[in-house]
Amino acid sequence: MKSVTIRHVAEEAGVSLQSVSRVINNGPNVTDALRDRVRAAIDKLGYVPNMAARRMGGSKSYLLIAFNDREPTLEKWRAGRGSDWVAQMLLGAMPRCEADGYHLLLELLDGHQARLHQRVDAIVSSLRPDGVILTPPHSQDAAILDRLDARRVPYARLSAGGGDARGHRIEMDENEAAAVATRHLIGLGHRRIGFLAGSADYAVSGVRLAGFRRAMTEAGLTVAPELVQEGEFSFESGLAAADALLALKDRPTAVIASSDEQALAMLHRAGDAGLAVPDALSLVSFDDTPPVSFSLPALTAIRHPTAAMAERAAALLIEGAAPDGTVHVLPFEFVVRGSTARPG
Amino acid sequence: MKSVTIRHVAEEAGVSLQSVSRVINNGPNVTDALRDRVRAAIDKLGYVPNMAARRMGGSKSYLLIAFNDREPTLEKWRAGRGSDWVAQMLLGAMPRCEADGYHLLLELLDGHQARLHQRVDAIVSSLRPDGVILTPPHSQDAAILDRLDARRVPYARLSAGGGDARGHRIEMDENEAAAVATRHLIGLGHRRIGFLAGSADYAVSGVRLAGFRRAMTEAGLTVAPELVQEGEFSFESGLAAADALLALKDRPTAVIASSDEQALAMLHRAGDAGLAVPDALSLVSFDDTPPVSFSLPALTAIRHPTAAMAERAAALLIEGAAPDGTVHVLPFEFVVRGSTARPG
Repeated sequence: MKSVTIRHVAEEAGVSLQSVSRVINNGPNVTDALRDRVRAAIDKLGYVPNMAARRMGGSKSYLLIAFNDREPTLEKWRAGRGSDWVAQMLLGAMPRCEADGYHLLLELLDGHQARLHQRVDAIVSSLRPDGVILTPPHSQDAAILDRLDARRVPYARLSAGGGDARGHRIEMDENEAAAVATRHLIGLGHRRIGFLAGSADYAVSGVRLAGFRRAMTEAGLTVAPELVQEGEFSFESGLAAADALLALKDRPTAVIASSDEQALAMLHRAGDAGLAVPDALSLVSFDDTPPVSFSLPALTAIRHPTAAMAERAAALLIEGAAPDGTVHVLPFEFVVRGSTARPG
Repeated sequence: MKSVTIRHVAEEAGVSLQSVSRVINNGPNVTDALRDRVRAAIDKLGYVPNMAARRMGGSKSYLLIAFNDREPTLEKWRAGRGSDWVAQMLLGAMPRCEADGYHLLLELLDGHQARLHQRVDAIVSSLRPDGVILTPPHSQDAAILDRLDARRVPYARLSAGGGDARGHRIEMDENEAAAVATRHLIGLGHRRIGFLAGSADYAVSGVRLAGFRRAMTEAGLTVAPELVQEGEFSFESGLAAADALLALKDRPTAVIASSDEQALAMLHRAGDAGLAVPDALSLVSFDDTPPVSFSLPALTAIRHPTAAMAERAAALLIEGAAPDGTVHVLPFEFVVRGSTARPG
C-alpha cells in the first residue's frame, strides 16, 4: 500500500521539498501563490502529513484538545436529551482543524473531581496539544488556566465571562441577547414577562438575567420578584419553575427561558394547563438546539453561535496568535418562530 | 509543574515499576489483585501514561479513530437538526477508551469524495490508530476494508448489514425492531399501517422495511403498495411522504417512520391536516433522538442502541480480540409513549 508523501506533493506542485515543508508548517517566506499551489497538490493527492514525522521535525503536535464538562454532558447523552453543544463545537472546529492538518480531540473533565487539575496536567503532558479549547465551567476556572500557563499551552476560553483576562476569550453578547428577546416581547405588547434563570454555576446565567432586567428598565417596566424563577438549565428545573409561574394569581403573558430544556418544560406545562402557545402564553427559548425547531409550535429562540465560537477558537490557536486582551464577541441570531404573539 | 509519573504510581501502590507497566500495557501475569491495586493508585494520583513514551515502548498508539459520514453529519449540524448519533457514539466509546488510557478521535469522511480511499490511507498512516470504528455507509464499503486490511489496522463495523463478513460486526436487529413496532400497532387494532422507508444508500433501510412486511404477513395482513413510501431519512423527505399518505382516499390509521425526522414530519403534517395524534393517527418513530421525547405528544419509538454499539466496538478493539465471524447483535428498546393508541 503506497503512501502519498511530501515528495509526491512537491512533484505535483512543481516546487521544492523545502517549499512544501514551509507551507505545511506555516513557515516564513510563503507567498499566497505558493500556498495555493501546494494546497491544490495536497488536495489532489489526498496527502496528510505524517504526524509523528512532523512532531519529530518540530515542536508541533497538530492536535487541539477541547475540554467539556463531564457529568452534565454524559448525563444528557444518557437521557437521550443531548443538547447539540458538543456537535456544534465539532461543526465549528473540525473543518477548521482539517484545513490545516490538525486534529481535534474531545476530552471530558469532571468539574467536581478532586483531581481535576492533576488530570488536566496529565492529559496535557501526555498529548502535548498545540492548544486547548475550554468551555464553561472550566473556562472560568483560574486553577486550570494556571496549569496551562505553567506548561505554556495556549488556550481559548468560550463564554468565560468577565474577570480573568487570560487567554483568547470568545463570547457572545448574552446580555444583549436576553435584551433583544425582552424587547421583542415588549414590542408585541407584553408587560408582565416571566424569566426562568439558569444555573448559578455558570456565569452566563446572571448575565442573561441582567439583560432581561436592563431591557425591562429601559422600557420603563418593573419586574415583580415572583416573575423571576431561579433554577437550573434542566427540563426538570423548568417544570418546577413553570409550575411556580403558572400558579401565580396574576400570571405572566410571556416567558423567557434561559435554556431550551426550560422552554420545552414551560411548553409542556402550558399544554397541561390548557394554555395555548402563543395565544395564551408567548415563549422565547435560549440556545436553539434541535428539539426547539421541531416542537409544536416551533419556538422563537436566541441561537447561540457555538459553532462560530469554536471555529474562532481553533483559528486563533492554529494561527498561534498571542492573546492581546481582545474579547472576541460573536453575533447571535434571534429566530422568530411560532411561539410568540400579541398577548391574548 | 510536577507530573505524576509511573514511579509515583509504583510507590503509591507499593509494587515494582515492572508491575505497574504490565498493568498499564495489559501485559501477562497480572492478577486481579495487582490490577485493582495499581488502578486505585492511578485513580488516586490522576496518573495518565505519557502517550509518546508508551508509543516508543511498543507498537500501540492508544488511539482509536471513529469515522462518520461527512456531509450528512455537517449538514444536520449546520441546520441545527443534529441527530445525536455522534453524541451517542461518544457516550458509548469515550468512557470505555478512558478506562484503558485510550483516546477516541472523530474524523469525517466524505462518501462522495473522489479520493476517499486515499484519505483513509493518509489518516491511518499519519495517526497509526490501534483500531478504527466504521459507521454506515463506510462500514459497508469493501474498498475501505481492503485499505485497512492491507495496513493491518483492526476495525469494528457498526450496522454494516450482511454480505462482507470481515472485521468485528456490531448490529442491532433492525428487522425485528420494525416487526416489534408493527406488532404493537396490530395489537392495538390497526390494520392499515403506512411505512416511511429510508434512504436506499443505507442497508438498514431495506432491512427495516422487510421487518415491517414480515410482521404484517405473520398477522395475515397484506400491505397495499401505496402504503409504503420510499424516501430519505430527512425531515423534508418525511413531509413529501406524509403528504402522499394523507392524500390517499383510504388513509392509514397508523404510520411507522424509518427515522425520527420522518416521524416528526408526519406529526407536523398530521397537525396541519387537523388529525390528532394518536386519536386519529398513531405514529411510531425509529432511533429515538432527543426531539422525539420532547415532542407533543412524545413519540413511541424504537431506541437505537448506538452508545452500546460504540462501546462494544471500542471494547473489542482495545481488547485486541481477533474477529471470529461473530455478529454482535445488541438489544434495542421499544419505548411506548403518547403517540400510539387504538384506531379512532
